[in-house]
Amino acid sequence: MSSHEFYMQLALSNAQAMKGQTDPNPLVGSVIVNHNEIVGVGTHLKAGEPHAEIHAIRMAGDKAKGGTIYVTLEPCSHHGRTGPCAVAIVEAGIKKVVIAALDPNPLVSGKGVKILKDAGIEVETGVLQEESEKMNEVFNKFIVQKIPFVTLKSGITLDGKIASRTNNSKWITSPEAREDVHKLRNENKAILVGVNTVIHDDPELTTRIPNGRNPLRVIMDSTLKIPLESKVVRDNQAETWVFTTENYDKQKKLRLEAHGVKVFIAGESQVDPLEVLKTLGSNLISSLLIEGGGTINASFLENKLVDKAVFYIAPKLIGGQHSPSFFGGTGIDKMSDAILLQNLTVTQIGPDFKFSSYPKYE
Amino acid sequence: MSSHEFYMQLALSNAQAMKGQTDPNPLVGSVIVNHNEIVGVGTHLKAGEPHAEIHAIRMAGDKAKGGTIYVTLEPCSHHGRTGPCAVAIVEAGIKKVVIAALDPNPLVSGKGVKILKDAGIEVETGVLQEESEKMNEVFNKFIVQKIPFVTLKSGITLDGKIASRTNNSKWITSPEAREDVHKLRNENKAILVGVNTVIHDDPELTTRIPNGRNPLRVIMDSTLKIPLESKVVRDNQAETWVFTTENYDKQKKLRLEAHGVKVFIAGESQVDPLEVLKTLGSNLISSLLIEGGGTINASFLENKLVDKAVFYIAPKLIGGQHSPSFFGGTGIDKMSDAILLQNLTVTQIGPDFKFSSYPKYE
Amino acid sequence: MSSHEFYMQLALSNAQAMKGQTDPNPLVGSVIVNHNEIVGVGTHLKAGEPHAEIHAIRMAGDKAKGGTIYVTLEPCSHHGRTGPCAVAIVEAGIKKVVIAALDPNPLVSGKGVKILKDAGIEVETGVLQEESEKMNEVFNKFIVQKIPFVTLKSGITLDGKIASRTNNSKWITSPEAREDVHKLRNENKAILVGVNTVIHDDPELTTRIPNGRNPLRVIMDSTLKIPLESKVVRDNQAETWVFTTENYDKQKKLRLEAHGVKVFIAGESQVDPLEVLKTLGSNLISSLLIEGGGTINASFLENKLVDKAVFYIAPKLIGGQHSPSFFGGTGIDKMSDAILLQNLTVTQIGPDFKFSSYPKYE
Amino acid sequence: MSSHEFYMQLALSNAQAMKGQTDPNPLVGSVIVNHNEIVGVGTHLKAGEPHAEIHAIRMAGDKAKGGTIYVTLEPCSHHGRTGPCAVAIVEAGIKKVVIAALDPNPLVSGKGVKILKDAGIEVETGVLQEESEKMNEVFNKFIVQKIPFVTLKSGITLDGKIASRTNNSKWITSPEAREDVHKLRNENKAILVGVNTVIHDDPELTTRIPNGRNPLRVIMDSTLKIPLESKVVRDNQAETWVFTTENYDKQKKLRLEAHGVKVFIAGESQVDPLEVLKTLGSNLISSLLIEGGGTINASFLENKLVDKAVFYIAPKLIGGQHSPSFFGGTGIDKMSDAILLQNLTVTQIGPDFKFSSYPKYE
Ligand SMILES: [Zn+2]
Ligand SMILES: [Zn+2]
Ligand SMILES: [Zn+2]
Ligand SMILES: [Zn+2]
Repeated sequence: MSSHEFYMQLALSNAQAMKGQTDPNPLVGSVIVNHNEIVGVGTHLKAGEPHAEIHAIRMAGDKAKGGTIYVTLEPCSHHGRTGPCAVAIVEAGIKKVVIAALDPNPLVSGKGVKILKDAGIEVETGVLQEESEKMNEVFNKFIVQKIPFVTLKSGITLDGKIASRTNNSKWITSPEAREDVHKLRNENKAILVGVNTVIHDDPELTTRIPNGRNPLRVIMDSTLKIPLESKVVRDNQAETWVFTTENYDKQKKLRLEAHGVKVFIAGESQVDPLEVLKTLGSNLISSLLIEGGGTINASFLENKLVDKAVFYIAPKLIGGQHSPSFFGGTGIDKMSDAILLQNLTVTQIGPDFKFSSYPKYE
Repeated sequence: MSSHEFYMQLALSNAQAMKGQTDPNPLVGSVIVNHNEIVGVGTHLKAGEPHAEIHAIRMAGDKAKGGTIYVTLEPCSHHGRTGPCAVAIVEAGIKKVVIAALDPNPLVSGKGVKILKDAGIEVETGVLQEESEKMNEVFNKFIVQKIPFVTLKSGITLDGKIASRTNNSKWITSPEAREDVHKLRNENKAILVGVNTVIHDDPELTTRIPNGRNPLRVIMDSTLKIPLESKVVRDNQAETWVFTTENYDKQKKLRLEAHGVKVFIAGESQVDPLEVLKTLGSNLISSLLIEGGGTINASFLENKLVDKAVFYIAPKLIGGQHSPSFFGGTGIDKMSDAILLQNLTVTQIGPDFKFSSYPKYE
Repeated sequence: MSSHEFYMQLALSNAQAMKGQTDPNPLVGSVIVNHNEIVGVGTHLKAGEPHAEIHAIRMAGDKAKGGTIYVTLEPCSHHGRTGPCAVAIVEAGIKKVVIAALDPNPLVSGKGVKILKDAGIEVETGVLQEESEKMNEVFNKFIVQKIPFVTLKSGITLDGKIASRTNNSKWITSPEAREDVHKLRNENKAILVGVNTVIHDDPELTTRIPNGRNPLRVIMDSTLKIPLESKVVRDNQAETWVFTTENYDKQKKLRLEAHGVKVFIAGESQVDPLEVLKTLGSNLISSLLIEGGGTINASFLENKLVDKAVFYIAPKLIGGQHSPSFFGGTGIDKMSDAILLQNLTVTQIGPDFKFSSYPKYE
Repeated sequence: MSSHEFYMQLALSNAQAMKGQTDPNPLVGSVIVNHNEIVGVGTHLKAGEPHAEIHAIRMAGDKAKGGTIYVTLEPCSHHGRTGPCAVAIVEAGIKKVVIAALDPNPLVSGKGVKILKDAGIEVETGVLQEESEKMNEVFNKFIVQKIPFVTLKSGITLDGKIASRTNNSKWITSPEAREDVHKLRNENKAILVGVNTVIHDDPELTTRIPNGRNPLRVIMDSTLKIPLESKVVRDNQAETWVFTTENYDKQKKLRLEAHGVKVFIAGESQVDPLEVLKTLGSNLISSLLIEGGGTINASFLENKLVDKAVFYIAPKLIGGQHSPSFFGGTGIDKMSDAILLQNLTVTQIGPDFKFSSYPKYE
């Protein structure tokens, strides 16, 4: 490990430790070095608070002058509560800036570097870039596309089924796998299911881990047939948003709103998944976990809206031409149109296998 | 490793090396030890030739007397070309017999041991028993049930599909996985597909590896709609047997037979998979590889006739409620009826994953 | 990993990253958590600057109030430049303190905890204690015993030799092993050799790695026979101290001092190794690397003064009853008196093997 | 694994299993293949009995004709009890011979191949050659040089010592390491120590493992000072040979011989190690384990007579300029003359480390 990597790794470790508390801001860490000694360490803690560079500069004090700052993301050029970090770096007298990844936002990307270079500061980029980008994969999509990073999760049998033909699905996967799902819920700002899941299972859709954060609950329901007595309507454990179509039942909408449920119109006869994502995005929901049935999953996959797919595969067979697969809908026509799953990692969880992957659409 | 295990392992290594050439006999190896020295090594080479013990006794000559014989399977009590091995052991003056596994055939199991004990010979069983039984899993089923050991093989996507809704399936899996399939073909005495696979793909169903043995080709075809110009009818690379029902087309049968194809009636309106296995068994076909579509696979799985299931899973998604899953048919009703896959081993083959498993039926 | 361990690990990572720059202070890191979010991170950077807790409290600001602070070492009770950290924690309104290891200094150990408890703060100790103590093994010895932590390093053949009988020793070990030695030099505040090494090899005893810190050079020389033209006297790359006995040559002492070399009297006829350590300790030299010959090594080992022993073993044999072993002197009488080497770790470095260990004296 | 390697591996496994029972003959295995089926397997069991090829040809019977024989060592061209194997192969009608290694004996190497080629048989050599040669490393040296393969074994501390300066050595190494030594004894035909070891320890020098073979006991004793009451003289557990010089005590010789001990003269004033090896070799002792002290070890190492060196290194230090090292004597002068230890393998045995290696002399 070079000394560049050593310092950047320390910055990454500090950034990574804040996972889940910086939304909608990215994870960023920073280290300042002067005469081969670390003189400041900083990390961004929370939106609205100082950026990583500011904390590091404050800790370094006079010793920032003449030093080198390592930062996992390009210093910002826009003014926030503490002003542009690029300017703060210049004013601190820092002589060199080492950056892992440039700002993913095309509107500002490179502007921070330009401020630094214009001030005569030496800038080096790309040190542990991949690690930094992976760490902020959610933020990096959201800041560019303004819609959430979508993770599809499904517990399936080895033959791709999510229930028997009589719709029995308790339980496909093991307790260990189901516990792992709660970590996914904790990491996502919102969770989405179809109304049939609500009718059939009456789930709470909460995070059952110590200190877990409950995600916003999102229901796709084209005719507002969601039961008023369902837990997501009644239990107040987290906010619930229902997306419906222009065919919605107006009386039902009023009753739902009386329970604090927000109702959105998104589509004429079928709920449009992209509209759902846009609405979530405009409300600063940067990440969404889909736990849908075959139809919901298909609507997101066929519209190429899933960024990451996580499967818990149970070593079981359900069989049956009419038992539901996790990926319903129409499907592809030619093998060359199949959705490829890339960067696959496989781990064993209890008796089941967890496949994490990134779909690549043809 | 104890010295018992050391000698039995040598016997197992020699037995295992004959894989594929002893049918319908099991793999058996033998070692004779006297005064801490190996004085004879034997292995069964081929049906009709001497058993392992006979080869070992021949090599040992006078030194068998007073020695210990290690044998991976209980010595036989029935007379074959070389007489019962248990008797030969007695006559050789051997003092102790160490056996891995008893004879799986309930009609004779224990009879060899009885002959030995009646002659005053010390007998010890169970040394590396599991290894011996696994090595002869095909034989052990066949000798008891008189129907072949059935391996179901399927190349599927991660969502359990074997083709798109337009029936496109070239190729689900990678060249590496397809090459591995040829090893399975080489290890099985027969291969079975449905007539639709013949119509759709016109496959050769041969083993494309150096020195490979082509399996008997078995087609399930309830109305004899198999094309006369198909390769399995015409190419003479291996024998082809067609199983049909009482609804069969008599003219077609005669034409097929004219090409050397054998036609069997097995079922009234649908081909009965158990009847197929019985016919194969009575013809001493001890192992069958099923490479069927969803319907064929379901008919064997739902009748609990699959002994081993091997899946090549490609990291792809096909989707679609109507695209064919590898396991069609009716399927189970309740999750508690799901077919469990036991003793799972997972290996990566090229970009794909190979799951080998043993179904356990509830 | 529990959440306690998660936060303490972040504190440890930050502490560890400062290795080499906090002397004579220990490595310490700190994290403050409030409502399940990290609100402050701190690490001690350099002697004379704020302690880890102070940095974390500053970053947390108002959010420290009601929070939990994790700190890898018991907060201090004595006033430094920033006052006792225990008091600062009380004043910040922190409700709980989680500590890895208590202060090793028996004079103050437990006093910080007492201040905290007296103020009604909940205190938990022992979280990742072993990791924290190992990280500060040098400091922990020094603060208690006031003499340096002694690491003996030797490059030897498999038969324990450091040179041939003609004193040829270039090179026992590989270039890779010799490069690794420079990391040891960089981690130690002083390096010690005997005068014969200076006469024979005329070494520089510097750290040849990028940004390396040169250690203080310490020579044991009972009669001041060190050559005036040797590099350690002339080259000014680092300070050089010579320890001699009352038999010293007074003229030579003056000449050495004229070159900036410090001369100490430590022993009547032989240099007393404990006296050397005490003098180094009183000058705040907390760590010493011994790179001596067989006599020097023996004098430290036989006096039970070596804390850690690092061997680079070359797969070679030198042989010879009179060729020098790395451990000369008298040696033990009975096998039960042999020095045991504990917590051994073995790694391969180029063609050689590195054994790191902690001597345990009977 | 190619099919060539598959068959040769089976031959090697059978050969290897006979380790220890074929002396002075090498380990050899053989497999005959015809039409892709194994038709014969053979291995050499014992000197005076048929060679591996003969056993395989006998098992194959008529099926040898037209087949391919795999053999781990070049078939012999000289007549033994069963005639030259090369001729037997020709007579059996075999069409192709695949050989791992040629005969190491320069007098006959290649002659077997010539007989085969002259008879029009295709010959291929070098398949798994290295494995075959390593398996017969003892035989390969002995057959060429007519002196035993010498393994030096020593239990040493990390500083290369075999005893304290008071000669205390019980115990340097752990019980686990000492048990491992008995395996070495079992694999060697003779074991050698110096008379001082007999006087000091009165060892039995036997193999204490189940069914172990006791090696011939060889003592180097220049003046015949071996005590008449020592176990190696009295206990009759194995033969004992004493090598002395022309200075020997004639009375003592007669008394030793009265106890069945053989006495040899080998050297004028010091026992010449090469003479010892030559005498052992002319008595068909093909392997020798040296368990000597520093002087014995040095006399063999300095004369470049050690083929393999096995060290059990205990994590202890004894120290002392005059405590005995395992490699005494004169030793080398220049580092470039150091004995290099090649093909090192390191394993942990209990608390100790076992280094196995092959000395390379400059
Ligand atoms: Zn900023
Ligand atoms: Zn038999
Ligand atoms: Zn403090
Ligand atoms: Zn021969």
